[in-house]
Amino acid sequence: MKAELLYEGKAKKVYRSSTDSEKLVLSYKNDATAFNGKKKESFPGKGRLNNLISSLIFPYLHERGIKSHFMKRLNETEQLVMETTIIPMEVVVRNLATGSITKRLGLREKTPFSPPLVELFYKNDDLDDPLINDDHALLLTDVIHKELREIKAQALEINTVLTEFFQSINLKLVDFKLEFGRLPNGDIVLSDEISPDTCRLWDLKTNEKMDKDVFRQGTGDLITVYEQILQRLERRV
Amino acid sequence: MKAELLYEGKAKKVYRSSTDSEKLVLSYKNDATAFNGKKKESFPGKGRLNNLISSLIFPYLHERGIKSHFMKRLNETEQLVMETTIIPMEVVVRNLATGSITKRLGLREKTPFSPPLVELFYKNDDLDDPLINDDHALLLTDVIHKELREIKAQALEINTVLTEFFQSINLKLVDFKLEFGRLPNGDIVLSDEISPDTCRLWDLKTNEKMDKDVFRQGTGDLITVYEQILQRLERRV
Repeated sequence: MKAELLYEGKAKKVYRSSTDSEKLVLSYKNDATAFNGKKKESFPGKGRLNNLISSLIFPYLHERGIKSHFMKRLNETEQLVMETTIIPMEVVVRNLATGSITKRLGLREKTPFSPPLVELFYKNDDLDDPLINDDHALLLTDVIHKELREIKAQALEINTVLTEFFQSINLKLVDFKLEFGRLPNGDIVLSDEISPDTCRLWDLKTNEKMDKDVFRQGTGDLITVYEQILQRLERRV
Repeated sequence: MKAELLYEGKAKKVYRSSTDSEKLVLSYKNDATAFNGKKKESFPGKGRLNNLISSLIFPYLHERGIKSHFMKRLNETEQLVMETTIIPMEVVVRNLATGSITKRLGLREKTPFSPPLVELFYKNDDLDDPLINDDHALLLTDVIHKELREIKAQALEINTVLTEFFQSINLKLVDFKLEFGRLPNGDIVLSDEISPDTCRLWDLKTNEKMDKDVFRQGTGDLITVYEQILQRLERRV
């Protein structure tokens, strides 16, 4: 199914599909990185878990009218997606203050955001992915004003859909990161992955962290909590 | 003219007017600070120069329909202004990339911004005045969405007016910082000062820096260049 390797990121490899040159194969790696790559470790089984989790979430979003690059899961660690040119911008939606924003803006941990906050970050490792505003996004990417408005509106819509979805499996969606990509026809669609690597998920009852923060903060076993997320998802779907 | 001292900032003292309790007296200090107060020096005559320069610019803006807190110059170092509650947000307009933004976003020095960039910073010394986006501004200040849109539109309008104004005295307006305040009636107006402390001004022909950067970078005598700005302004007005 895979032809040439196009790109290797921190958590995934991207190959061109051998059967359809307009499609890509995402191969999930076992590596976990944090703090812009300064902390790094490999967890056997992590690639499989993120692939399976992401492959359950994208179809759910599709059913609710959210288009994405996702086509289908191929096997335990790989999925087939449409080729997009990734927009070098991370779109973060926050429902509660935790992590970097508490220090950056002096906010108390768990300050609720109502309406949710949308933040944009410029995807650039050399610059440490700096926060940007709309004017910067229009300068640094090929996105135009109308598209940026739609991306932010869609991020909020995804937040509404996923908040309810995760709630149904007793998880609080605290915040998450999205990436968008441009299809050959010019349309912009949700891309990348949606997994405990890219979402902060807290157990609804115990507030236990069930996401990459257990690795960032060294407070638990990543595989154990990702496995729990997958089990709750599989029971629901 | 002055009653109680209400506030002492890095560059100005603010007193309540003894004759009208709804008005304030701004007293310009001789102190120059940079890098969030880490570099500090006193320049005899600086307070007078900034007061005189600011007192020429605000009336010019008034004539072009830009409302502000400014009422009149009282003497060499003081001006009378309407009382406002300052919105804790710096509004920066940039026509060319220089200073912090070049490192933050990896831009080449003197990259032109067309349209000009508008940036918001949260006025908070403890946090080093972090860059914020519109969502943050709505969270951290009492400004509502419509007011924020108007503030940014007015900042761009001020940029248009001041760019032409400075051009007429052979200065390029590279970027500048504005602050806004809320009047007792709820209206938001331009506040603070407009001076070589808050604007980057380059000589149109030589590109010589004629603003606080000579102090920040230790490349020239602050009083000499501020005096030149005042002379060019006085010849024009």
